Amino acid sequence: MFILVSEVGPRDGLQSVHRTMATDRKLAWIAALAAAGCREIEVGSFVHPKLLPQMADAEAVVRGALAIPGLTVMALAPNLKGVERAIAAGAHKITMPVSASESHSLANIRMTTEEAIAEVGRACALRDASATRPGIEAGISTAFGCTIEGRVDEDRVIRIAVALAGQGADSVGLSDGVGYANPAQVKRLFTRLHAELGDKAGGAHLHNTRGQGLANVVAALDVGVITFDASQGGIGGCPYSPGATGNIVTEDLVWMLEAMGLDTGIDLDGMARARAILAASLPGEPLYGHLPDVGAGKGFSYATRGPAMETAGKAAA
Amino acid sequence: MFILVSEVGPRDGLQSVHRTMATDRKLAWIAALAAAGCREIEVGSFVHPKLLPQMADAEAVVRGALAIPGLTVMALAPNLKGVERAIAAGAHKITMPVSASESHSLANIRMTTEEAIAEVGRACALRDASATRPGIEAGISTAFGCTIEGRVDEDRVIRIAVALAGQGADSVGLSDGVGYANPAQVKRLFTRLHAELGDKAGGAHLHNTRGQGLANVVAALDVGVITFDASQGGIGGCPYSPGATGNIVTEDLVWMLEAMGLDTGIDLDGMARARAILAASLPGEPLYGHLPDVGAGKGFSYATRGPAMETAGKAAA
Repeated sequence: MFILVSEVGPRDGLQSVHRTMATDRKLAWIAALAAAGCREIEVGSFVHPKLLPQMADAEAVVRGALAIPGLTVMALAPNLKGVERAIAAGAHKITMPVSASESHSLANIRMTTEEAIAEVGRACALRDASATRPGIEAGISTAFGCTIEGRVDEDRVIRIAVALAGQGADSVGLSDGVGYANPAQVKRLFTRLHAELGDKAGGAHLHNTRGQGLANVVAALDVGVITFDASQGGIGGCPYSPGATGNIVTEDLVWMLEAMGLDTGIDLDGMARARAILAASLPGEPLYGHLPDVGAGKGFSYATRGPAMETAGKAAA
Repeated sequence: MFILVSEVGPRDGLQSVHRTMATDRKLAWIAALAAAGCREIEVGSFVHPKLLPQMADAEAVVRGALAIPGLTVMALAPNLKGVERAIAAGAHKITMPVSASESHSLANIRMTTEEAIAEVGRACALRDASATRPGIEAGISTAFGCTIEGRVDEDRVIRIAVALAGQGADSVGLSDGVGYANPAQVKRLFTRLHAELGDKAGGAHLHNTRGQGLANVVAALDVGVITFDASQGGIGGCPYSPGATGNIVTEDLVWMLEAMGLDTGIDLDGMARARAILAASLPGEPLYGHLPDVGAGKGFSYATRGPAMETAGKAAA
């Protein structure tokens, strides 16, 4: 069985790093990730460059990434203006965040949840009128809780998901950018999402802030989720929580899925080569993950590609 | 539902640290863990003090811990001599490691697997003849793979478990001291363990070497495992793998279980106080865990004890 690991490091990771990685370094990293077998990469964010100068080169990065054969090039757009830019740049897929928490929505994209849902509808109309017709995915952020509001009502999350599908989104995923999700909650919410949305139920975007990332993946797999966002080295996450790691670490996720017999198409040695580019491009930036420290271990075998070296995926010291 | 988190830091953690913690510091830490709600603590190892000088005070630590009301005092014993010492000291429970990998067994306790199984039988006879009749738990190490042999045959693991139960062990658990386990394998092996051993099926001793610890807990919970070893700060683990964290981190495990609605009886603020003692007693020693960095988060609630502070469990900076 194939599980899609959607690499979000070049977007979610780099937007959280204060330094800006040069466009050619971003493209070298993205090319190495694709060479390692990543089939979908979120390469940038079409947000106003004053808000996130690290993402000011989104057009150039999307265009560069489009040259990589077989790669699905994804970009984030927080609003209609961003969607216009993403379509013009030629992104294959566009993801739009919609927060289930009103306070977070206002703080994050300066729209109420209702307005953000309507914005997705306008984006889908724009998409329908475009020549390239990119996929539009909506990601419900704070679906598992919010640092401002605390608990978020699960019925509300599901109502928002249904509304987003009704607006024309191709898929609706659930997102835990603050690491509040627990496995029981992940099972409950994705079970309901599948029941309500069927084929439009999207993937899981999980953070490892409380060390629960892979535990939540196991729970999500159990209820049929087949797409997971992750970032190389776990970069990304919450700049307000010192010591908090960010996204789930792609390397550790790939090890887990492959060991479980689930095919990701991703090669751990290829990921180590991509990690070396990332590390060299952001010297001193902390990179997370266990697998790059210890290697795959004796007897590790990919789900469909057979045995790997004991040290597979181990980063150069 | 109650889940037993068995704290193994004072044994598995401290035996991996090169420095020796003074007996009174160990007892202060153990008392703080018990005050936080830990109901079972593995306080030491009755191994020859030449091999592990950090554990040379096992008698004194067991005797000191016995004074803590309501605490189940557990100790490890690798052989009959250790079991004699543990019984004489008054341990409530004794855990004996039996390796499923012949090479690991010889390296670890200088017995073949067959000899180690027979040793458990002799230990049970000794226990039966004792006045205190402590519980004897066998833990099958390398149950999920071995750094020397690689893959370990699952049928062999189950045969060993059945043999150990037949020798009179009160329970037989499965142990992954090297972080090779994956969630699919955990489900398979514990499902078989329960089918073969019924009430004698024991808990899971999982390490976080590849970041899979809590993911494996979720898998084990799914097939009915209700006892998990963990160590405060994740101390312990493999000295041969630089960068590899050790046991699953008690604080992160407790957060996960409580958030899932599973009662552990353990208070995160109490754990933070215990962690301060550990940190002060081993200055400079790396302590792991996400929860102590970021706190429980807004809206977190214990399974049966209600809401906690947002910063619950956060260690002092």
